[in-house]
Amino acid sequence: MTKPIYVLNGPNLNLLGTREPDVYGRETLDDVRQRTEKKASALGLSVEFRQSNREGELVDWIQEARSHASGLIINAGAYTHTSVALLDALLATDVPTMEVHLSNIFTREAFRHHSYVSQAADGVICGCGPRGYELAVEALADLIDRPAEAG
Amino acid sequence: MTKPIYVLNGPNLNLLGTREPDVYGRETLDDVRQRTEKKASALGLSVEFRQSNREGELVDWIQEARSHASGLIINAGAYTHTSVALLDALLATDVPTMEVHLSNIFTREAFRHHSYVSQAADGVICGCGPRGYELAVEALADLIDRPAEAG
Amino acid sequence: MTKPIYVLNGPNLNLLGTREPDVYGRETLDDVRQRTEKKASALGLSVEFRQSNREGELVDWIQEARSHASGLIINAGAYTHTSVALLDALLATDVPTMEVHLSNIFTREAFRHHSYVSQAADGVICGCGPRGYELAVEALADLIDRPAEAG
Amino acid sequence: MTKPIYVLNGPNLNLLGTREPDVYGRETLDDVRQRTEKKASALGLSVEFRQSNREGELVDWIQEARSHASGLIINAGAYTHTSVALLDALLATDVPTMEVHLSNIFTREAFRHHSYVSQAADGVICGCGPRGYELAVEALADLIDRPAEAG
Amino acid sequence: MTKPIYVLNGPNLNLLGTREPDVYGRETLDDVRQRTEKKASALGLSVEFRQSNREGELVDWIQEARSHASGLIINAGAYTHTSVALLDALLATDVPTMEVHLSNIFTREAFRHHSYVSQAADGVICGCGPRGYELAVEALADLIDRPAEAG
Amino acid sequence: MTKPIYVLNGPNLNLLGTREPDVYGRETLDDVRQRTEKKASALGLSVEFRQSNREGELVDWIQEARSHASGLIINAGAYTHTSVALLDALLATDVPTMEVHLSNIFTREAFRHHSYVSQAADGVICGCGPRGYELAVEALADLIDRPAEAG
Amino acid sequence: MTKPIYVLNGPNLNLLGTREPDVYGRETLDDVRQRTEKKASALGLSVEFRQSNREGELVDWIQEARSHASGLIINAGAYTHTSVALLDALLATDVPTMEVHLSNIFTREAFRHHSYVSQAADGVICGCGPRGYELAVEALADLIDRPAEAG
Amino acid sequence: MTKPIYVLNGPNLNLLGTREPDVYGRETLDDVRQRTEKKASALGLSVEFRQSNREGELVDWIQEARSHASGLIINAGAYTHTSVALLDALLATDVPTMEVHLSNIFTREAFRHHSYVSQAADGVICGCGPRGYELAVEALADLIDRPAEAG
Amino acid sequence: MTKPIYVLNGPNLNLLGTREPDVYGRETLDDVRQRTEKKASALGLSVEFRQSNREGELVDWIQEARSHASGLIINAGAYTHTSVALLDALLATDVPTMEVHLSNIFTREAFRHHSYVSQAADGVICGCGPRGYELAVEALADLIDRPAEAG
Amino acid sequence: MTKPIYVLNGPNLNLLGTREPDVYGRETLDDVRQRTEKKASALGLSVEFRQSNREGELVDWIQEARSHASGLIINAGAYTHTSVALLDALLATDVPTMEVHLSNIFTREAFRHHSYVSQAADGVICGCGPRGYELAVEALADLIDRPAEAG
Amino acid sequence: MTKPIYVLNGPNLNLLGTREPDVYGRETLDDVRQRTEKKASALGLSVEFRQSNREGELVDWIQEARSHASGLIINAGAYTHTSVALLDALLATDVPTMEVHLSNIFTREAFRHHSYVSQAADGVICGCGPRGYELAVEALADLIDRPAEAG
Amino acid sequence: MTKPIYVLNGPNLNLLGTREPDVYGRETLDDVRQRTEKKASALGLSVEFRQSNREGELVDWIQEARSHASGLIINAGAYTHTSVALLDALLATDVPTMEVHLSNIFTREAFRHHSYVSQAADGVICGCGPRGYELAVEALADLIDRPAEAG
Repeated sequence: MTKPIYVLNGPNLNLLGTREPDVYGRETLDDVRQRTEKKASALGLSVEFRQSNREGELVDWIQEARSHASGLIINAGAYTHTSVALLDALLATDVPTMEVHLSNIFTREAFRHHSYVSQAADGVICGCGPRGYELAVEALADLIDRPAEAG
Repeated sequence: MTKPIYVLNGPNLNLLGTREPDVYGRETLDDVRQRTEKKASALGLSVEFRQSNREGELVDWIQEARSHASGLIINAGAYTHTSVALLDALLATDVPTMEVHLSNIFTREAFRHHSYVSQAADGVICGCGPRGYELAVEALADLIDRPAEAG
Repeated sequence: MTKPIYVLNGPNLNLLGTREPDVYGRETLDDVRQRTEKKASALGLSVEFRQSNREGELVDWIQEARSHASGLIINAGAYTHTSVALLDALLATDVPTMEVHLSNIFTREAFRHHSYVSQAADGVICGCGPRGYELAVEALADLIDRPAEAG
Repeated sequence: MTKPIYVLNGPNLNLLGTREPDVYGRETLDDVRQRTEKKASALGLSVEFRQSNREGELVDWIQEARSHASGLIINAGAYTHTSVALLDALLATDVPTMEVHLSNIFTREAFRHHSYVSQAADGVICGCGPRGYELAVEALADLIDRPAEAG
Repeated sequence: MTKPIYVLNGPNLNLLGTREPDVYGRETLDDVRQRTEKKASALGLSVEFRQSNREGELVDWIQEARSHASGLIINAGAYTHTSVALLDALLATDVPTMEVHLSNIFTREAFRHHSYVSQAADGVICGCGPRGYELAVEALADLIDRPAEAG
Repeated sequence: MTKPIYVLNGPNLNLLGTREPDVYGRETLDDVRQRTEKKASALGLSVEFRQSNREGELVDWIQEARSHASGLIINAGAYTHTSVALLDALLATDVPTMEVHLSNIFTREAFRHHSYVSQAADGVICGCGPRGYELAVEALADLIDRPAEAG
Repeated sequence: MTKPIYVLNGPNLNLLGTREPDVYGRETLDDVRQRTEKKASALGLSVEFRQSNREGELVDWIQEARSHASGLIINAGAYTHTSVALLDALLATDVPTMEVHLSNIFTREAFRHHSYVSQAADGVICGCGPRGYELAVEALADLIDRPAEAG
Repeated sequence: MTKPIYVLNGPNLNLLGTREPDVYGRETLDDVRQRTEKKASALGLSVEFRQSNREGELVDWIQEARSHASGLIINAGAYTHTSVALLDALLATDVPTMEVHLSNIFTREAFRHHSYVSQAADGVICGCGPRGYELAVEALADLIDRPAEAG
Repeated sequence: MTKPIYVLNGPNLNLLGTREPDVYGRETLDDVRQRTEKKASALGLSVEFRQSNREGELVDWIQEARSHASGLIINAGAYTHTSVALLDALLATDVPTMEVHLSNIFTREAFRHHSYVSQAADGVICGCGPRGYELAVEALADLIDRPAEAG
Repeated sequence: MTKPIYVLNGPNLNLLGTREPDVYGRETLDDVRQRTEKKASALGLSVEFRQSNREGELVDWIQEARSHASGLIINAGAYTHTSVALLDALLATDVPTMEVHLSNIFTREAFRHHSYVSQAADGVICGCGPRGYELAVEALADLIDRPAEAG
Repeated sequence: MTKPIYVLNGPNLNLLGTREPDVYGRETLDDVRQRTEKKASALGLSVEFRQSNREGELVDWIQEARSHASGLIINAGAYTHTSVALLDALLATDVPTMEVHLSNIFTREAFRHHSYVSQAADGVICGCGPRGYELAVEALADLIDRPAEAG
Repeated sequence: MTKPIYVLNGPNLNLLGTREPDVYGRETLDDVRQRTEKKASALGLSVEFRQSNREGELVDWIQEARSHASGLIINAGAYTHTSVALLDALLATDVPTMEVHLSNIFTREAFRHHSYVSQAADGVICGCGPRGYELAVEALADLIDRPAEAG
């Protein structure tokens, strides 16, 4: 298995560590990248870690993941709640996919309770802070080995 | 840290492995218990693993966890979607809490999309099958060390 | 076919004959049991007739019916409208299932118009009073012979 | 008791046996008529069995039933969900009335869950296939003897 | 002005005087016709009075009224609440139009509170019993003289 | 019958004739008063005609009508749609009551489609312009003679 | 291929050319028939062109189309928005089906935005005026050749 | 009057005094019992004071109250908002009934604003803390003397 | 403590004893005043008892209570359900406040289930008839002594 | 231009400076009046500044403004969200109109998000505190010069 | 007429032929381009065919079409359902516009039933697969000749 | 204070002056820029004025404003109603922020009544046309001096 896991981050996640630390914690996105790479490496996996504020660029990257990635971790930020375009891109993508949110979106404003991404993800991890990315890597590692059975 | 993690399972989870295997997978609840204990043990934690079909008994156990547990993992099954009583018990409980679902509840019937448990949990893991219990143990291990900061 | 039909009655049905006779009629639950047994016997079937006020106990009994019953008649009373746990237990049960209500629930309060049980039942009979149990036995007799075809 | 039971069938039921057999079964409407007449005859009752694709004709027939029928069985098909005119005709009719549906309408599209007919029927039988007509005859036989008491 | 006023009555109004007299009063539809004709005659107008249980026939008559009537009074009965076809026919008709209901539809079931007919009528009179038809004739008499100004 | 009919007009009706003439017509409220008095007089009735912009004053007047009026005509203007206080005052009042609106409120903004007043009125007349007051007097004249029968 | 295409038109379409020309254009239904026949003829197809104001008659014709037509074009007019009976007839019909509306129904009143017909049609064409019938013939010509593949 | 007042407390009320003291105050449930007994005693009444986390057990106790209690005070806790079973038990019970909540449920989460219990209670007292139980005893004392008149 | 308790009554409460006695009982508002004064006096408190049909006057009185009252009891009648102005006046007022309703508003029309007043009151008492005012005085007496703690 | 600008303030604004200073700031309404007059004076305009807790009085003043004012600034307070009467008065008024709110109503309770006033105002300014009145004067100054063009 | 028709395709349409072929068919977007150009050419029209995953770029292209295109065909993909920005761009564009969808969006998930694009398009064609683009060219050809009349 | 005010304009605002002049007026965006700069200059402030059709670019610019701007004026155009991404960027930004709309969005289509931007703005100005930008500069000038107090 030589293709990397794509880890895609949506709008405003580049501010991590400085934006609303009560909600999102104090680690920067680069810290998260390092955690994720370390965990992946320990499981024999590599990581392609990216962030964009643009919905269309995230669509491009998900499309790219169709042939270049072994798995996908996506924290789509605000686009989680509004983007059918991301959902469609994910539906067109067969690689195992985990959705991650740093905060527990279900204790926040009502418009954050619904996720289009969840409709195309294998699993969802939220509220675990940066640690959630590592857990998602572990979950993906399983799915990459035996992709379809986890109920 | 000598108190165990309480792992509480709700109605019909005793049927695991035989009930709708397309949705819930083929492992039995005892298999899940063993996985969870093994992972906890590796992290220096112990596990108190229980299942009940009764809402009231689950309320009792959550109340018990207030003084007897270091952390709580709850897969409340169907009560996830209907039980304010469980929510109130969890709100009265200060120990770190992870919500787990075997399946991705967001791709199922609409009435399974809402969780009262999420309103009192620190984090949520769903769609990862039995592996989700292990991930929850890992997440709890962090929270037990430094309970309140994960954003 | 030697396994009995399980006839499960939910909360407050033990009050039958004394509770709101305008709505529920004057026969007691024991009268209903006798009717049901007599009809079943005429069709070469036996009956296991139970009542409980507890959602969890009803879940237990439905689970028990998976291996011990040839068919299931359920009047879940108030849990009809609120219990996803009963629905999940029924979804895990392959035996032919009939839902019964004594009164016509569709002419009563709006919250009685929705039934979780209906989502897992083969058929529904309501508004026929105690006679509905006998009709349900007849319907089950058909389904036990040729379980899946009735459209 | 010499007046017949009116058995009125709504739109598209003339296609029975050929239309969506997975949903509606393989018996034709004529088969259903024969079943119903046989059951009625066994209970000393006769049957007037009709079908129409026209809402207004069904209204006419229900009005006719006010003076010419001892009881009414109605499977209003699609008009079940949309016709206040049928409801009003039924409300103006004092004869005992049973509503029948071949399929379990509660497991189908949401717009089939609501029935105007139920608001004026004594009882409802659904999901029992053609057998439901026989059960309805039995239920009516009771109501014709002692019309108002069944709660 | 030699064209008559068309007075069109919808489903079940032929039962007037016998159907739910608490709601609809004891006069028959023929009594109502006589009242209406008498009032019209007093105002120098004539009346074409009809009733049908069929939505399509009512549509035909409204279309006919486009060229044959000087005004239109419509009590569409149950179709009031469900028929876009009647609304469209009325929207295609330029003659002054009054909507009449015998009962006060706003104190009845919620589904009777909305009227498609009102969206195309000049005025609405309800709850005045048979007298409402006479009032509608008076209102029409004004509109026929100076059709568009009443605000 | 010596008590007058109370004719109560709500907020902004004092502007009649000058306010949005496309919607409300060009007659002034004083013109309407004269019409109403003339029609009442022809039927042997007298009129007490008032207008207020104050919800509380209208409540006072309705209370006064309980003992001082033989009938009540109310055009509550904007309070039609928002005032439970007016509804309660009307519910406490036994005199026959007609609701009037100059315009057809059902073709205007959605918030004008609901009337609290309708829930306590015997009948409703709308869209007939100032003529509606005369029709309401006629309808009241009937109700004052034989108050309760009109269905 | 010798069976004709059935082109079925619903209520009020017989008024075409005279009714609300701003919305529906100035061609008559007969003009539309000629256009449609001409286009069909050019593609080697024939047309059976009908109109009815009656829901039940439209149901009859759709049922007839099951064995007598090679394809179906339906402009159900107002019944588009209210008729489950038409939907059921279409669901029972295997011939390729196109839905047509003269106007763009999505820019009109909210109750015209939902179509029961769309749930059973292969394709939908709206807002193209009479030309839409010709386009529908072209689309059907494809579907009649290779019925199921168009995604 | 020798039968006691039943005072029934629902889930998590056993935690009183330790659970969310900002919301529920610092008195324990035993303190509340003593207050209630003292007040009852002063009014010549006795008290049977119970708590359960189980919906079914509360149903049992309400049924028991039908013959063993002179009045009923119920603080159903979380089941207030979700239990039709409790409502049905209360509807089957003729003894005077007061609903109590320690906190003002109307200033809390939206799902706490609706109470099934209120639909069967004579009166409701909320937001008065433990004092509310004493007030309920006083209100019951009145109802026990002259049960039905309080409007 | 020398400032009086303000007891403010909203629209139509001046009709108490004569209006809908089935709902509101037979005592007059003056009877209620005497009860309230007597109870207050027994607890060493005085009462300023007022009624108005005007929303604005009630706002004035609540504003006056900010400096002149030690506590506030409000039965806002119909304004309970519609008045944000009363809510804002209450939010600007720091004195302990009890909301009272004579009837159980939760068993009446849906529009009476929501109260703006509850959002600013410490506690709510309803369905206890005139006795509710006395209970409110008792509850206030506690709050005046130790205003903020009742959970 | 000699007519003044009417500046109308609704219920509870007389408490400004003392009521919920976190929300509404510390300036009194008299301070606001002085600010507004000063700004108007600088632009060659005069101000008629009023406050009332009564909906009806505000309606009177808006009506008065039709002939006596050159422009209108309205902060309707709580009536913003509930008063169709104010809306109707404003719709009957041709003078340029600005709506002002001290706080940002869109970040407060949901029932404060809707404004009837906005439907008749030329512009809306909210969340700018007392400064918003000055801005509204500036905006009005433009509209008074060239009333209708601002898009 | 020398300006081309702009044919604009939204997110994920570049995957056509590989993505969910059951829904979208097996032709690639380049195949669709060739079809469209060929049809346009036959009608004497040229085509500018583009695709983008970016909402903003699609907005740019629609703006460009205002002066550079004779007509517009838009398949906005997922942005159809979420983009007010596209709607506003289209509203600012006077060229004739056709909306196309390959699949029948009305038989898919509920969130795909609403289209912002439809609110600004002259016509809509959906469910005809790639053939829909050709039909749209034909429809546009008409509109380009006589742009405004099609009802 | 040397940092400029960022004035950010969303999609389609580059068309200002040519797009729907009835709604948006005839000034171009460059005219608006000049107005805004002139007003800012008069208050000793400078302006960085930008427009983009891309949601992601607007997110970038808001992020940039966190460190480079003293205040922010945003007219997000269509993204106002759909973009959680913009809201999140604004929530991460501490500089004083004013929301501006040229038209009164509350008198337009329902989907334009909700603004995500308002949830993060200090104040909102709408319906004042280009003048609104100048008023926003004035409001910002206050907030930049004493940022947090305006209620």
